Amino acid sequence: MTMARERIYLFDTTLRDGQQTPGIDFSVEDKIAIAAMLDEFGLDYVEGGYPGANPTDTAFFQEKRTKRAKFVAFGMTKRAGVSASNDPGLATLLQAKSDGICYVAKSWDYHVRVALGVTNEENLESIRASVEAAGAAGKEPMVDCEHFFDGFKANPDYALACATTAYDAGARWVVLCDTNGGTQPSEVREIVAKVIASGIPGAHLGIHAHDDTGQAVANSLAAIEAGVRQVQGTINGIGERCGNANLVTIIPTLALKPHFAQRFETGVSGEALAGISRLSRAFDELLNRAPEAQSPYVGASAFATKAGIHASAIVKEPKTYEHVPPETVGNRRKVMVSDQGGKANFIAELRRRGIDVPKDDRRLDSLIAVVKEREAEGYAYEGADASFELLARSMLHSVPEFFRVTSFRCLVERRFDANGNLKTVSEAVVKVMVDGEEKMSVAEGDGPINALDIALRKDLGKFQDEIGDLELVDYKVRILNGGTEAITRVLIESHDSTGARWWTVGVSTNIIDASFQALMDSIIYKLMKNREMAGLVAAE
Amino acid sequence: MTMARERIYLFDTTLRDGQQTPGIDFSVEDKIAIAAMLDEFGLDYVEGGYPGANPTDTAFFQEKRTKRAKFVAFGMTKRAGVSASNDPGLATLLQAKSDGICYVAKSWDYHVRVALGVTNEENLESIRASVEAAGAAGKEPMVDCEHFFDGFKANPDYALACATTAYDAGARWVVLCDTNGGTQPSEVREIVAKVIASGIPGAHLGIHAHDDTGQAVANSLAAIEAGVRQVQGTINGIGERCGNANLVTIIPTLALKPHFAQRFETGVSGEALAGISRLSRAFDELLNRAPEAQSPYVGASAFATKAGIHASAIVKEPKTYEHVPPETVGNRRKVMVSDQGGKANFIAELRRRGIDVPKDDRRLDSLIAVVKEREAEGYAYEGADASFELLARSMLHSVPEFFRVTSFRCLVERRFDANGNLKTVSEAVVKVMVDGEEKMSVAEGDGPINALDIALRKDLGKFQDEIGDLELVDYKVRILNGGTEAITRVLIESHDSTGARWWTVGVSTNIIDASFQALMDSIIYKLMKNREMAGLVAAE
Repeated sequence: MTMARERIYLFDTTLRDGQQTPGIDFSVEDKIAIAAMLDEFGLDYVEGGYPGANPTDTAFFQEKRTKRAKFVAFGMTKRAGVSASNDPGLATLLQAKSDGICYVAKSWDYHVRVALGVTNEENLESIRASVEAAGAAGKEPMVDCEHFFDGFKANPDYALACATTAYDAGARWVVLCDTNGGTQPSEVREIVAKVIASGIPGAHLGIHAHDDTGQAVANSLAAIEAGVRQVQGTINGIGERCGNANLVTIIPTLALKPHFAQRFETGVSGEALAGISRLSRAFDELLNRAPEAQSPYVGASAFATKAGIHASAIVKEPKTYEHVPPETVGNRRKVMVSDQGGKANFIAELRRRGIDVPKDDRRLDSLIAVVKEREAEGYAYEGADASFELLARSMLHSVPEFFRVTSFRCLVERRFDANGNLKTVSEAVVKVMVDGEEKMSVAEGDGPINALDIALRKDLGKFQDEIGDLELVDYKVRILNGGTEAITRVLIESHDSTGARWWTVGVSTNIIDASFQALMDSIIYKLMKNREMAGLVAAE
Repeated sequence: MTMARERIYLFDTTLRDGQQTPGIDFSVEDKIAIAAMLDEFGLDYVEGGYPGANPTDTAFFQEKRTKRAKFVAFGMTKRAGVSASNDPGLATLLQAKSDGICYVAKSWDYHVRVALGVTNEENLESIRASVEAAGAAGKEPMVDCEHFFDGFKANPDYALACATTAYDAGARWVVLCDTNGGTQPSEVREIVAKVIASGIPGAHLGIHAHDDTGQAVANSLAAIEAGVRQVQGTINGIGERCGNANLVTIIPTLALKPHFAQRFETGVSGEALAGISRLSRAFDELLNRAPEAQSPYVGASAFATKAGIHASAIVKEPKTYEHVPPETVGNRRKVMVSDQGGKANFIAELRRRGIDVPKDDRRLDSLIAVVKEREAEGYAYEGADASFELLARSMLHSVPEFFRVTSFRCLVERRFDANGNLKTVSEAVVKVMVDGEEKMSVAEGDGPINALDIALRKDLGKFQDEIGDLELVDYKVRILNGGTEAITRVLIESHDSTGARWWTVGVSTNIIDASFQALMDSIIYKLMKNREMAGLVAAE
């Protein structure tokens, strides 16, 4: 029997409330990249920030940044004592290039008095006038009822009056916010039921939960069970204090747990869901932080089993030991028992790259041993496909020595220039042997690594033409431990005019050495790729 | 009106199920240290491991390792086909120096058949005989009903038969386990109610939840609401896959949230609760991993606020923006400075550092403008308190120029050494003016930044003695955008022999320049701090 399933609307506030996370500050470029990821993934609303509050958000709202999702600006309701048309903050909001406006409105009378310093009636009037102004400007109006649950406990009539005023003025969504994050799921369930009983349909209610008691996901799902149809959250649960509700956990639960999947559907397709592990990791990459291995659904350990009573059973019948199939969320099973499982992974990974190797080839064992050893040193081949392929090819077959760097030197000098200004100059000198001929190049750059990069690619003799379209598009550094003498991992992303992109890695206590390894791998990979496409490597 | 509160029993499985965490392997010494921490904290049961399963656990159970808490051994029920007295595994369990035995028993008929390969009746008989054997040996018997919720969904009668057999045989606790971690709170609530209705009193039931849908805490609390009176979990939620229920989150919720605190009590005193942040961090120290900043209650960010609109109110009346007082869990409030912060943030933050400035001081506006501008360039003052303080003091009052770096030079050279091996050498030269005298220092290091760090701190003339105890403990690099010429942010953590820790920041397109700024700030902060402690800055 198939029932019509109800639609749950997904509202992402990574770029707005997520920005409240200590240590996270998005640039306009970051926001553009993240909005595109969210849009493509299938979220219904992408809240981009608070235009007018800071230069980044103002710049971000100069264009609409989503194609499918509704692009939402966040801001305060109009100030008391001025009309909506005379409030400059509201004017900025209305002029932002957004599809909708999400107003934050106090719904706890205490905060209205103490934080806003206005009367309860003035606050209601601000909500009404602001919602109407958004509607009149052709934008979808929404209201985040701040401190709704605490406000409801203190003064249920006033909290309800705020929600009802928003709804009656035409708000598409009235969002019940657990701003301080301390509300328990049973309380959420009970209060949502009372709001619906008061006359606001669940199809117009949203939930905005925080994780201060580790229950933001549970509170969001409890609110959905109680009737709300919009859920607000962030990617990987970033957000103020302990974070917002984690959409990366909520979305698979709605889609895969029969308890919810039988009743509800979202705008995220099954195909998009299989990309959620990648989305989660790409987001952490962008923040340059290590993904949390134990994250529900998407963590590297989420489907990992240590050797023991469970491991052999999982191999027999995974379904009985896994709450969902890992591939539905683009993750994979890890049974840490024997090298056999590992070997099959390697063979599959190599085949994917066009490298065939028999299971009993002893060079395969050597490759696995080297990869394990290097990963223990800090290499991360999972994120550096090109370096992995180069290593595999060089151990299983061979990679031609296109050129050899015999020495390099980087100099960074800070001194006063002729005008008495402090200036830092970075210079690199590289000596390369190509076809028995020594080439020496020098370059200046923004910092030693940029100088080295330019010098290295300045003259590779007969290969120079081939690397003309090679460009470095991203450069990431992660310090793996301790102080300034710590082990440093460098990841470099490159691309060329064919549209290909590849990642290379270098590890050293010396950041210049680590960068040099990754730069070299990138160039060699490019040269090898050119030959492979021309069928030359295959013919060797 | 005071009601008698019901006792909730806390069962810690950090040393047993927590040991299933990928990457965590406790030594006997680790286990002894952790058991002592748990015991002192006031937990009721400490499960130490599986004696007989591996040498560590066998050694650990040669002595009783707790004073107040009951010390529990984990193990399988007797094998089918042998009597309890003829099962060597059971004999080892009974001989272990424990107060209680927690048996794991299959309660999903599918697993009985496929994983154990015995009949349903044989499994029930194993449960009965094993529980009786523990009782006869003078040990408190408990049974973890593995896969209870999935088993109940598949075959409720058999799952109940397992639980009832354990209870009837004398098990003090029958623990309902969500082994695969996919059960939803509503399902937990419903199934627990059915178990109680079947005749096992809630006072004999426990819950064991996993975090595979991010709801281990919510499932545990839902089970308590439904009637169970024992809750199993781990410190910081370590455990297989996504981890076990986090006791560090559950315990404060039970103690501080009126919804629970009015009805329940635990063995953890208010005084012990105020040590829970320390416990959580000490445990991570022992595992040698960075504490999770966003952990509920105990994380460094759990009571941190960045937002301007909230910050001014928090200063006025913290209770209305904090779900519990941070000091009840031994944590503290943090109001952070950032791009988004308002004037109130700044004033509060400055006051905490002993810098008083009137709200209408125009230098305050200049400071705010400079901070905003610098944060737009990539500085992150919220994570660099010392750099913020230096900037504030220099703009509001003054910071003496202790010394001046007139120039520096870093050289990184890679070449073949006398033995034909490739070698990279990093060298830095720094020129410093102190009291009109020029000092020139040179040093080699692991990479250019380490060399610069050593050279910079090699000879600061009359200040040299003061920085002898300055140590850099962490160094972080974040590339803010694009390729090798990108903007780089460096954060440095320093400490000294007084136990003080401070963070400094530098930003530049040149990583050496960025590192230099952060290194300089660290040294200047240290010198200023010394003077401030001696009352010299105040007297200026």
